[in-house]
Amino acid sequence: MSKMMHEILEQPHALERTFHAERKHAEAFSRFARGKFRLIVLVARGTSDNAADFGRYLLELTTGIPVSMAAPSLHTLYHAKLDLRDALVIGISQSGAGTDINMVLESARRHGAYTLAITNEAKSPMAGLADDVFLVRAGRQKSVAATKTYTGQLMMFYLIAFALGRQLTLADISEIPGRARSALAVADQIRGVVERYRYMRQCAVVARGLNQANAFELALKLMETCYVVAERFSSADFLHGPIAMVEPNFPVLMFMPPGRTFTSQAQLVRRLHALHAETLVIMDEQAKVPAATRAIRMPGSIPEIYTPIPYIIPGQIFAAQLAEAKGIDPDRPRSLHIVTRTV
Amino acid sequence: MSKMMHEILEQPHALERTFHAERKHAEAFSRFARGKFRLIVLVARGTSDNAADFGRYLLELTTGIPVSMAAPSLHTLYHAKLDLRDALVIGISQSGAGTDINMVLESARRHGAYTLAITNEAKSPMAGLADDVFLVRAGRQKSVAATKTYTGQLMMFYLIAFALGRQLTLADISEIPGRARSALAVADQIRGVVERYRYMRQCAVVARGLNQANAFELALKLMETCYVVAERFSSADFLHGPIAMVEPNFPVLMFMPPGRTFTSQAQLVRRLHALHAETLVIMDEQAKVPAATRAIRMPGSIPEIYTPIPYIIPGQIFAAQLAEAKGIDPDRPRSLHIVTRTV
Repeated sequence: MSKMMHEILEQPHALERTFHAERKHAEAFSRFARGKFRLIVLVARGTSDNAADFGRYLLELTTGIPVSMAAPSLHTLYHAKLDLRDALVIGISQSGAGTDINMVLESARRHGAYTLAITNEAKSPMAGLADDVFLVRAGRQKSVAATKTYTGQLMMFYLIAFALGRQLTLADISEIPGRARSALAVADQIRGVVERYRYMRQCAVVARGLNQANAFELALKLMETCYVVAERFSSADFLHGPIAMVEPNFPVLMFMPPGRTFTSQAQLVRRLHALHAETLVIMDEQAKVPAATRAIRMPGSIPEIYTPIPYIIPGQIFAAQLAEAKGIDPDRPRSLHIVTRTV
Repeated sequence: MSKMMHEILEQPHALERTFHAERKHAEAFSRFARGKFRLIVLVARGTSDNAADFGRYLLELTTGIPVSMAAPSLHTLYHAKLDLRDALVIGISQSGAGTDINMVLESARRHGAYTLAITNEAKSPMAGLADDVFLVRAGRQKSVAATKTYTGQLMMFYLIAFALGRQLTLADISEIPGRARSALAVADQIRGVVERYRYMRQCAVVARGLNQANAFELALKLMETCYVVAERFSSADFLHGPIAMVEPNFPVLMFMPPGRTFTSQAQLVRRLHALHAETLVIMDEQAKVPAATRAIRMPGSIPEIYTPIPYIIPGQIFAAQLAEAKGIDPDRPRSLHIVTRTV
């Protein structure tokens, strides 16, 4: 079994460990931080940037505090001086070793921000320089393609959203690891469909709202581990131009959880069906989407706000199994290492 | 000649008209707005969202005010209540008719924000509902693929950055239309290289910093008008995973203006050369990038901060000429209309 697949399977345990180790910290952070910040800035690269995109949605939705995604080059190359009084700046990095992300955190502290690190490495430079650290307990990441650290970062955003807002409860968050465990059961379904995509060279991955980050993350996994030219879009942006490139049989992978985005996603599936495109849809087992070409059905009934962690799991498994079907070792992607340093 | 090409050629005039019609407005807005806002929120879709990405870089760099890119679905589907006191919320839309963007502006006003519209249509719903309007004078857009309204929107961000900060001058901004006129001369160079890409089905477009928006915009043009599966990346994010999909001869299109991002872009060209990839680089005529496969050389010596408008022009011409070389009518992209309505 690949390291990637091994780490995918570790996720329920890693999430449980992380939740139990950080829940008291979240309560303490809540007492310190609730009502204190007028702006949240997220700074990350790669998979962690996808986790940040989820954090952006979740935090704006549940805390009402506006969120900005930092452009690292503004700080590292252009030396912009931002007014970050009353701002909470959160760096997200598996390794905690990304030079550019750490430069942004240092610069933010100098400009008056309170800084938080979300990292998997307690002894990393990032953990050392931030004012506070939310430590993902995913265990050492050995796979180049990040999976368990991504869901661990998402878990941290739930805890931070709990701390800063009033909409989430620790009781509900504590159910996430169990939902992730149930999601692992989709591996069999995926084995039944993955060969169909053996020769897929390009595709689009689309979702909306809280699951948009998952579309970006699945596209990244397909690029890294399967060498598929996988485009990533919000469903709404996809309709504003990129849909022109859809030819008959063009594959579009979609996250389609229950909730607020379902109706517009179902419309998109029908439109793609009319264009004779292929759709592979990750959706609730109860959902009815007759126009979808293929479906991966998620067990259990998950409230929309808690879908992102369980829903990325079939995406991760699909990427790992597709790499295998294509004869690619997902643990040794061309041109990549676990830690990428950019300035 | 296609409507798209016609509108590309109109840009110097449209920029001149827009600058002269709005310069006094920018001065008045400066007296009202300088020092007033602690946060800027940008909201847009499609090409206008790419213009907003440029606005984000320019405004953070020159005003020090943090910028957040709004996620429209948070407002239209999830009804998030954001704290937008002391915020300037800017909607960007060619037609001013995007339902979702207008819903966000209305919601922002209710939550205490001051709202600005950047639009090409004085009588649009967006112009009617915003507190103030910066009106792009590009003339009616007849091409489905936006070109002159994109550069018009960029011009507006220069004027707004002038108004809110202290780094830009109207004298420097007034030189942009002339720089755009000079850039049109690259059409002949592009005619010499475009046939090489007649059968290109996929590619990546990358840039960094102030020109990242142009990479996203060129990718969108290639998807809309040439049906190329064109991925868009910041150069730094490209190195954090997607570079794994680069095979020998895989085409990577790059914006490589002089300035702060040049060195890291040159490193990326060398790395891609070592992977036997193809690079097509838009760069200064004086620049030396021997590892690039093909180059489009920009006339004149342009200060980095003023490169984005002239540099997108070869991108637009490349997309229009490539569509022609592929036998596609760029004025009639499959599945698209000028105004896309999403909620």
